[in-house]
Amino acid sequence: MLGEIANLPVARTAQALRAQVRSWRMEGLRVALTPTMGALHDGHLTLLDVARGPGRADKVAASIFVNPTQFAAGEDFDTYPRDEARDAAMLAASGCDLLYAPSPDQMYPDGFATEVRVTGLTDLLCGAARPGHFDGVALVVSKLLIQAEADVAVFGEKDWQQLAVIRRLAWDLDIPTDILGAPVLREADGLAMSSRNRYLSQPQRAVAPVLHRRLRLAASEIIGGADPTAACAAAASGLLADGFESVDYLEARTADSLALIETAPPPTQSRLFAAARLGRARLIDNVPIEAEAASKAL
Amino acid sequence: MLGEIANLPVARTAQALRAQVRSWRMEGLRVALTPTMGALHDGHLTLLDVARGPGRADKVAASIFVNPTQFAAGEDFDTYPRDEARDAAMLAASGCDLLYAPSPDQMYPDGFATEVRVTGLTDLLCGAARPGHFDGVALVVSKLLIQAEADVAVFGEKDWQQLAVIRRLAWDLDIPTDILGAPVLREADGLAMSSRNRYLSQPQRAVAPVLHRRLRLAASEIIGGADPTAACAAAASGLLADGFESVDYLEARTADSLALIETAPPPTQSRLFAAARLGRARLIDNVPIEAEAASKAL
Repeated sequence: MLGEIANLPVARTAQALRAQVRSWRMEGLRVALTPTMGALHDGHLTLLDVARGPGRADKVAASIFVNPTQFAAGEDFDTYPRDEARDAAMLAASGCDLLYAPSPDQMYPDGFATEVRVTGLTDLLCGAARPGHFDGVALVVSKLLIQAEADVAVFGEKDWQQLAVIRRLAWDLDIPTDILGAPVLREADGLAMSSRNRYLSQPQRAVAPVLHRRLRLAASEIIGGADPTAACAAAASGLLADGFESVDYLEARTADSLALIETAPPPTQSRLFAAARLGRARLIDNVPIEAEAASKAL
Repeated sequence: MLGEIANLPVARTAQALRAQVRSWRMEGLRVALTPTMGALHDGHLTLLDVARGPGRADKVAASIFVNPTQFAAGEDFDTYPRDEARDAAMLAASGCDLLYAPSPDQMYPDGFATEVRVTGLTDLLCGAARPGHFDGVALVVSKLLIQAEADVAVFGEKDWQQLAVIRRLAWDLDIPTDILGAPVLREADGLAMSSRNRYLSQPQRAVAPVLHRRLRLAASEIIGGADPTAACAAAASGLLADGFESVDYLEARTADSLALIETAPPPTQSRLFAAARLGRARLIDNVPIEAEAASKAL
């Protein structure tokens, strides 16, 4: 039931994926799933590294699925970069054991009628700017987790809110898969790696790293006692001055419940979150509000 | 991790349930889940019989959970009959292998934020009269199926629409459990067994069986060539004349997609569905529109 690309076994159906995972688990092996939308960069490969950490997984299945239900009308679903052969070669070179690449018709056959939604966590940050986005994420991730029956699944911390939503739904729906985050991988100048960075022109690419720099600076100011709301507002103004066209949000929130932090000092486990637009790209990033991160920013 | 009531092992947490089911499956045994809200009657016990049918399951776990999310405000959640000791004794006597009886706090802990919804199928029939009911059903059944990891799960055909919703969500979410229906068990006079029949006074109980009789009669008329809409309207008027206080619906629909049938002849696999109120009770029933059923009605 498995095909092959670039010497990497490929499952095209949930049945083929599950058969392989069950076979591994019958052998006593632990299995990880690393869901992606393809257009892989080195950041995705850290998901595999996290998956293979001590006590985590012996086998890693990476999924590639550009999920239509998480794109709103007018977003970049049609133009989202797709290059399965290149992705498969990258995964094979990174020691991935299985590629799961279902078609949209496999995932959402005629008559499909089920929705999964996480309330609260999805109304804010990216949820406010992208209505329906996290409903689509919740649905596809529920399906992928239930299909794979993996021991662990790894998601990137760049999409921190997405990770929080996925932790919540996996817990609420009793899905027996541990949800792990993989730290943000950054270019040398601090820009968080993202498949959408390729939308940036060369001048825009030169501006893009200030998103991370402004977040780090604001985090250090807040650690130093600054008012969080004022520090965020200053950072957002700075981004516009630097050449960003608009700032969807730039906010301090708690790490798990994503509660807005409006007064100093911030609770432990707080983060700064931002989304800002630069040309065709909508860039997102987040950093911890903690002394260590602040010292690195200075 | 298991307790015991009436010599029946009892799991109070999803972890305890899953541990027992996994242990059975490791032994090569097939496992069934039969979800109920308790207040068991002989109709529930047919779920166990179906579960133990050839090739189905070697072990049966029955769940009892009066699910708050499927009751609307003003419905009978608080007064729904609860008698765990009696239910456990009935299950034990019927050869049930495990009772799963979680608390509401176990199922919906603080911070719970996830919704599951099936669109389309849930807007009509009971869904029109009970807003949010099937959202609650979809959520709790998703959780129970994911918790149990059973090979099969059995639901009563009296709640035919519920069964259709559950088949849809299990298929859409790739839950690897076969969903089976158990035929309606009826009293000698044709009344479908239901925990809510105990809400009927003696005179109401004498009237109640006409619900089934009128459905069978209408089915026979439709098989004989009558216009479905007219036959349904006549049956509904008949129920009111018989003493029912109101008729929420009485309609001919296809069995799987629940599409309304307005013209003769009906497609194969069609059914008549009704809900009608008699005193405190809201009774529901359904029958196939087929020659055999029609001949029994006459």
